[in-house]
Amino acid sequence: MNTSLIRNIDGDRLFRALETLGEVGAYTEERTGLRGVNRLALTPADGEGRRHVVERMRALGLTVTIDRIGNVYGRRAGRDDTLAPVMMGSHIDSVPTAGRFDGCLGVLGALECIATLNDRGHTTRRPVVAAFFTDEEGARFGTDMLGSAVATGRLALADAYALRDRDGVSVFEALTAIGFVGEVDERLTPPHAYLECHIEQGPVLEAAGLEIGVVTGVQAISWHEVTISGRAAHAGTTPMELRRDAGVAAARINLHLREMIGSGRFGAGMRATMGAIVPHPGLVNIVPGRVVCTVDLRNPEDEHMRAAEAEVLRFYAQVAGEEKVEITWRQTARTESVAFAVDVQRRVAEAATAHGLRHAPIISGAGHDCQEMARLCPAGMVFVPGLYEGISHNPREYSTPEACAAGVGVLFDVMLGLADG
Amino acid sequence: MNTSLIRNIDGDRLFRALETLGEVGAYTEERTGLRGVNRLALTPADGEGRRHVVERMRALGLTVTIDRIGNVYGRRAGRDDTLAPVMMGSHIDSVPTAGRFDGCLGVLGALECIATLNDRGHTTRRPVVAAFFTDEEGARFGTDMLGSAVATGRLALADAYALRDRDGVSVFEALTAIGFVGEVDERLTPPHAYLECHIEQGPVLEAAGLEIGVVTGVQAISWHEVTISGRAAHAGTTPMELRRDAGVAAARINLHLREMIGSGRFGAGMRATMGAIVPHPGLVNIVPGRVVCTVDLRNPEDEHMRAAEAEVLRFYAQVAGEEKVEITWRQTARTESVAFAVDVQRRVAEAATAHGLRHAPIISGAGHDCQEMARLCPAGMVFVPGLYEGISHNPREYSTPEACAAGVGVLFDVMLGLADG
Repeated sequence: MNTSLIRNIDGDRLFRALETLGEVGAYTEERTGLRGVNRLALTPADGEGRRHVVERMRALGLTVTIDRIGNVYGRRAGRDDTLAPVMMGSHIDSVPTAGRFDGCLGVLGALECIATLNDRGHTTRRPVVAAFFTDEEGARFGTDMLGSAVATGRLALADAYALRDRDGVSVFEALTAIGFVGEVDERLTPPHAYLECHIEQGPVLEAAGLEIGVVTGVQAISWHEVTISGRAAHAGTTPMELRRDAGVAAARINLHLREMIGSGRFGAGMRATMGAIVPHPGLVNIVPGRVVCTVDLRNPEDEHMRAAEAEVLRFYAQVAGEEKVEITWRQTARTESVAFAVDVQRRVAEAATAHGLRHAPIISGAGHDCQEMARLCPAGMVFVPGLYEGISHNPREYSTPEACAAGVGVLFDVMLGLADG
Repeated sequence: MNTSLIRNIDGDRLFRALETLGEVGAYTEERTGLRGVNRLALTPADGEGRRHVVERMRALGLTVTIDRIGNVYGRRAGRDDTLAPVMMGSHIDSVPTAGRFDGCLGVLGALECIATLNDRGHTTRRPVVAAFFTDEEGARFGTDMLGSAVATGRLALADAYALRDRDGVSVFEALTAIGFVGEVDERLTPPHAYLECHIEQGPVLEAAGLEIGVVTGVQAISWHEVTISGRAAHAGTTPMELRRDAGVAAARINLHLREMIGSGRFGAGMRATMGAIVPHPGLVNIVPGRVVCTVDLRNPEDEHMRAAEAEVLRFYAQVAGEEKVEITWRQTARTESVAFAVDVQRRVAEAATAHGLRHAPIISGAGHDCQEMARLCPAGMVFVPGLYEGISHNPREYSTPEACAAGVGVLFDVMLGLADG
């Protein structure tokens, strides 16, 4: 039934693997009846997913190592095993309301490439490594690309260990609880190249009728955790002019983010989101005395991003003055835009053409482990389209078996060219 | 050290009683070092407070009965014990960030009046009852004046029992857990009159240099729980025009509430608050797919309130259309404005004058058990000022010993006049 143009890898086997892993941490969304996935980083469900993938790595004959931040590497020996390996990978942790594809396509796609090498009895010149990194999403401990940031030296291991979730559980405690504190040094020796196949998580490819996105890079990301301190007061009696309503201040910031985008002053690619808002005490009849909320800014242009950040800070100060509240903020994530290796982009485009797949360059709207790996070695990504405007971080997230096979088919060719080159 | 003008009751004894009860459920606010109170309804702390007050009632020789919704009545026999009693009361439950005075002044003030009768060896013609009602605040189960609404027939016992808190615990379960499901029929036989002394919880008396507020009634209250359903989506990739951001919709409603007040179209007494905002999934990098928030409207004029409610509903529909979200709401509380008995107001004013206290009529901005009791019998309230613009529902809430003594001194005179009349 596979109508894919892809003949090099086994698209059916790949999709079954996605479905099987998608049952780990699965739940049924009440209102829609859709099957979603919740494998929040370092929870028992993540642990179960990790053990499932490790088992698959071992079944494929890979040598599995786990480093001290819980990144997992499955290595297939090369003809010259002293050479730096070609690495493929992504992540299997998820946001709490996820689909089956985000991250998993890159990890299970890497394993499909290795299964294909096994099927062919082909030993590449260089070793090949399939990897999955710890806590790419940042949904639990507030810092995304955690494992790959540690592996590539952007984040110190001790700082990563010390991060805590809302319940006060540290990364180290959570890693220990699921049994994934490995013994291998977390600092990665630079591979020959790093490749990652991923769903687009956006509407561009689907809208343009494209089958492959040749990813040129990743946009800049800036996250703030904002604390607004006003004064809790009785909702029934406190006159409006005496209020210091932290909730109103948060609402103004939220709406200002959208006005900033509408203004066009920060480029057409700007995104801005207030995803979390926690008012205290959070009761119907009390003016919120304090709100902790988040601001997520994205921009493909570093200069636009810096201007947007400056404007957000200016507005915090304006709102603090006008609403008689105190506003403090801390940076919980900040990455510059990243450009991927031109050589890898060229190889991705050539492989897509060879398979008869329509492709075009695209910038990534989301952050990915590949942007961390790009500091160590030539790195690049293959995007495949998702249905429903590429919706992601949602149980509706869906890429067809053909779309997934196309991405991994391209991944295989690029990997093979680099591993045998 | 009591510089009060009040000689009929013992202001020092009253204030000590407030301080003692204020230690039950007390906590120290981290940022300010202030001592606050958290006796959220039907929690263990509320149970401890209840047992403390019941013990005090018994020590004063009162006959204590508990009804099936947990309202507690302490009865002192009259010379003609067949007559309807004069009842005084209020509540001892609190919001989670409370002071020591809200409600407690009315309950402990009633007990001070009875202690004074005991001191004098005076038996009133009518019986006298001191009462405290279950869950006046509504902060846990979403419906305020719960106990007095059941006692006066506005709310059915079974409906009250079935209300649940955020953790799914029902009123019945919580009442059972603290041992306060009484055996007495919850429907109260109309007393001869009902009196309640309370802190103003607003800035009017302090600003005007008044010692007593003769409460003319209570403003109308309308609470909505609003559910906004959009679509959860990836914050980094979803273009703004494809978003259905429930958080932005909530922010617009919050700001519209303030615009409504500023417009003056709903009277100078309008108050509006969004106290609770819970976004789902509530994570930094996900556009909120759903928000549950609250709207608290108050107005001294029933007609203005109805117009404000209509405007809020119109705006829900407008925002739903403009933000491509679905907005549903349910009414979690709704009371018309209540006018207190003119005879009781006259008696309060006369007693204040007799003590040389500056007084004026005032409308209550907050809801009180007295507004429920006003359906059963002539009812009225005595307000005393609070410092710091009358701040309440906050650990800074404070009324001086002299202010408290003034209110209870007036309460005593009005009670005595009615009980011997």
